[in-house]
Amino acid sequence: MTVDAPVLGRQPLWRRALAEFLGTALLVAVVVGSGIAAEQLSTDTGLQLLENSIATALGLGVLILLLAPVSEAHFNPVVSLADVVLGRRDRSGLTAPALGIYLLAQVAGAICGAILANAMFAIPTTLSATDRATPATILAEIVATAGLVLLIIGLSRTGRSVPVIATAVGSYIGAAYWFTSSTAFANPAVTIGRIFTDTFAGIAPASSVPFIAAQLVGALAGTAIAVALFTRSDPR
Amino acid sequence: MTVDAPVLGRQPLWRRALAEFLGTALLVAVVVGSGIAAEQLSTDTGLQLLENSIATALGLGVLILLLAPVSEAHFNPVVSLADVVLGRRDRSGLTAPALGIYLLAQVAGAICGAILANAMFAIPTTLSATDRATPATILAEIVATAGLVLLIIGLSRTGRSVPVIATAVGSYIGAAYWFTSSTAFANPAVTIGRIFTDTFAGIAPASSVPFIAAQLVGALAGTAIAVALFTRSDPR
Amino acid sequence: MTVDAPVLGRQPLWRRALAEFLGTALLVAVVVGSGIAAEQLSTDTGLQLLENSIATALGLGVLILLLAPVSEAHFNPVVSLADVVLGRRDRSGLTAPALGIYLLAQVAGAICGAILANAMFAIPTTLSATDRATPATILAEIVATAGLVLLIIGLSRTGRSVPVIATAVGSYIGAAYWFTSSTAFANPAVTIGRIFTDTFAGIAPASSVPFIAAQLVGALAGTAIAVALFTRSDPR
Amino acid sequence: MTVDAPVLGRQPLWRRALAEFLGTALLVAVVVGSGIAAEQLSTDTGLQLLENSIATALGLGVLILLLAPVSEAHFNPVVSLADVVLGRRDRSGLTAPALGIYLLAQVAGAICGAILANAMFAIPTTLSATDRATPATILAEIVATAGLVLLIIGLSRTGRSVPVIATAVGSYIGAAYWFTSSTAFANPAVTIGRIFTDTFAGIAPASSVPFIAAQLVGALAGTAIAVALFTRSDPR
Repeated sequence: MTVDAPVLGRQPLWRRALAEFLGTALLVAVVVGSGIAAEQLSTDTGLQLLENSIATALGLGVLILLLAPVSEAHFNPVVSLADVVLGRRDRSGLTAPALGIYLLAQVAGAICGAILANAMFAIPTTLSATDRATPATILAEIVATAGLVLLIIGLSRTGRSVPVIATAVGSYIGAAYWFTSSTAFANPAVTIGRIFTDTFAGIAPASSVPFIAAQLVGALAGTAIAVALFTRSDPR
Repeated sequence: MTVDAPVLGRQPLWRRALAEFLGTALLVAVVVGSGIAAEQLSTDTGLQLLENSIATALGLGVLILLLAPVSEAHFNPVVSLADVVLGRRDRSGLTAPALGIYLLAQVAGAICGAILANAMFAIPTTLSATDRATPATILAEIVATAGLVLLIIGLSRTGRSVPVIATAVGSYIGAAYWFTSSTAFANPAVTIGRIFTDTFAGIAPASSVPFIAAQLVGALAGTAIAVALFTRSDPR
Repeated sequence: MTVDAPVLGRQPLWRRALAEFLGTALLVAVVVGSGIAAEQLSTDTGLQLLENSIATALGLGVLILLLAPVSEAHFNPVVSLADVVLGRRDRSGLTAPALGIYLLAQVAGAICGAILANAMFAIPTTLSATDRATPATILAEIVATAGLVLLIIGLSRTGRSVPVIATAVGSYIGAAYWFTSSTAFANPAVTIGRIFTDTFAGIAPASSVPFIAAQLVGALAGTAIAVALFTRSDPR
Repeated sequence: MTVDAPVLGRQPLWRRALAEFLGTALLVAVVVGSGIAAEQLSTDTGLQLLENSIATALGLGVLILLLAPVSEAHFNPVVSLADVVLGRRDRSGLTAPALGIYLLAQVAGAICGAILANAMFAIPTTLSATDRATPATILAEIVATAGLVLLIIGLSRTGRSVPVIATAVGSYIGAAYWFTSSTAFANPAVTIGRIFTDTFAGIAPASSVPFIAAQLVGALAGTAIAVALFTRSDPR
């Protein structure tokens, strides 16, 4: 979370919020849009997921690379929360008001991104009817989110550069689409955004609640493991 | 657009034009040629697009890496236009005559690239009959081009190295094939080139006009967002 | 094996063991989990393997990048063994007790990873019934493991950075899934872990013994070739 | 061709020849082996080629990264020839005897690689019956080889690092599988090696002659374009 920490202070909050809004919107547009294209063009469900996951891995990596210098490219409430918790001691993290603005920008962006993707494919925006919550997918969301938070904290604490972090986080999500049974939402804002499309990547409102709860549990677990594994002074 | 800016002055204009011609030609040859191969070898349309998009993402990244030191590797009229507009203040951008030569080289290269691809597959060069313009695909071209221009300006203003930019732009286009309904032409010269092949990647002349108009609108939007998000002095 | 050698001394052994346990567990969870997803979602066996191999290549690269600063990210008994053998002269390698702890952590992690993957897909943990050992696959395991060990020693001796090594090792395994007839287990701990899932990536206990023997032979061959090709002082 | 030029002088010729032999052997083993696996596991021809091309792109990139510090990782007679021609002036290139040894090592390696791949899949080594030479594929080989030689010279003359070159050359071949009608052999040694397998990646002896002739023409064209575009002193 100390990616380019000095940059943060120099960027006004409105610009950071704009970057979080835009980044989360485009992330959800990539996830939802590529899901729609895959569903329309391919018949094999696995092939659809392959197309969806490759587009997402590439798109997410690019968005982090582009926007990290502005807002640190969280695009994810659990990443912002971990930043606040871990940054408290040395005051490098988000302040409480900034956290609120980040979360608002992320959720608003996610919803707008889903609507934009629907519009690009001439599909009306309606709520998803795809139930996804089962004990197995809830466990999967815990694991996926723990892994994501562990990865981000670990890469940050070992001083990796933004291009390396961007590629790694994109790659992680690309893999997590496949090794979890939930396709790794791992992001409360994105989960909310994906309610607003009744297509391949959608999630029914009723399923979103246990998914988000599982993500919070996973984020806590991931933060705990990261703190155990990576001390602040770890060299690269 | 300030990628290796000092280099520009040292390269004669004929060499820069040659690089733009060659780069755009090979880019279109990759797009069209891999589309033909995909169409001939696979039956699932999504799989065809996956093959086409992977080849394009890899090929575009390589071409930018190779030719950026010579011509900055625009290969795209809207990128050259943005370079002129944004570079005016500090005189680092293209001059008006150079812009004209860049655009000519790009369009000529794109057409030659399509013809080359056709020839490599023993397919006669005829105009495409594939109508692509709908309100949804026009919106998609605006979004795709805005994203591309935002990405290029942002990466340039945050001082990313050529290898990082090359990979990121290739990855972006790889994702944009999927998250847009238009498969992200996002390039007026390439759009013109793709008129000259009646195969998977072709576009009917009548569709090319609204596509190019949408790309210009998108480029304007992307430039505006980039100027809002990235100041000249942003560190990496 | 001298990746960030000075780091090793500073990390307590319990933390290194935790990193080896966690890394090997997550590696097997990625291999097994993505295999289950592929098997459930796709019908073409090659497509299943493509999905499985892409997820593994991405996941392995991320895990090495993340955990190399803590434990050198071996995740593989033959890598730890080579480290001991090659590091003897300059005392940079693992000590004998540390080696024992590494091997235990890797095997325990691999088994837990398989169980976790099964649980994420609501599949009971049972022993695999997939026989894989034939003369051809035994030869393939020798080749795959020799290549892996040669790669790791060579990249280490030519001073490559952790991000480069991580990407290269992930890419190698991604390719080795395909160019070998065994799908390149190339790792005794992972082979043991994959006994504990009766799914796409599983291996019957009876096949695991010749596979592990072949891996040990391959590791020896790879070490010998690496010592012939790369002297300690090779520059990058 | 000036990749780590000072290194060359320090490596004895036997070691460089061993690296060329091993690298070309493993490259052909990857190409042929992944082709066999693809053919056995998938039914769609395009999907087979996708699997084959992804494995090759990853494998080739890894081999260049690993062996460039030893032998410059040519693995290809036309690359060695261009090195001799371009390196004459400043005596940095291969000497004539070294060139002979490089070519021998490459051809012998390529044949052994095909035999190894056959053996890993329990397939007897017989000559390929796959005719590939048509006017269109001959043109494609010229284009593919010109592009490869242009790329290698250009990246070398603009001072790119070995990891960047390795990824770029692998990516280029990955794209060239698709944008050419010949699947881009682009390498006389590999072409000879691929005669020795009657499987997916094989080529009939009669087709290999025009393929190799086309590759030599392409190499000449690529060298000429590279000399026009890149002066020796080009910065990165």
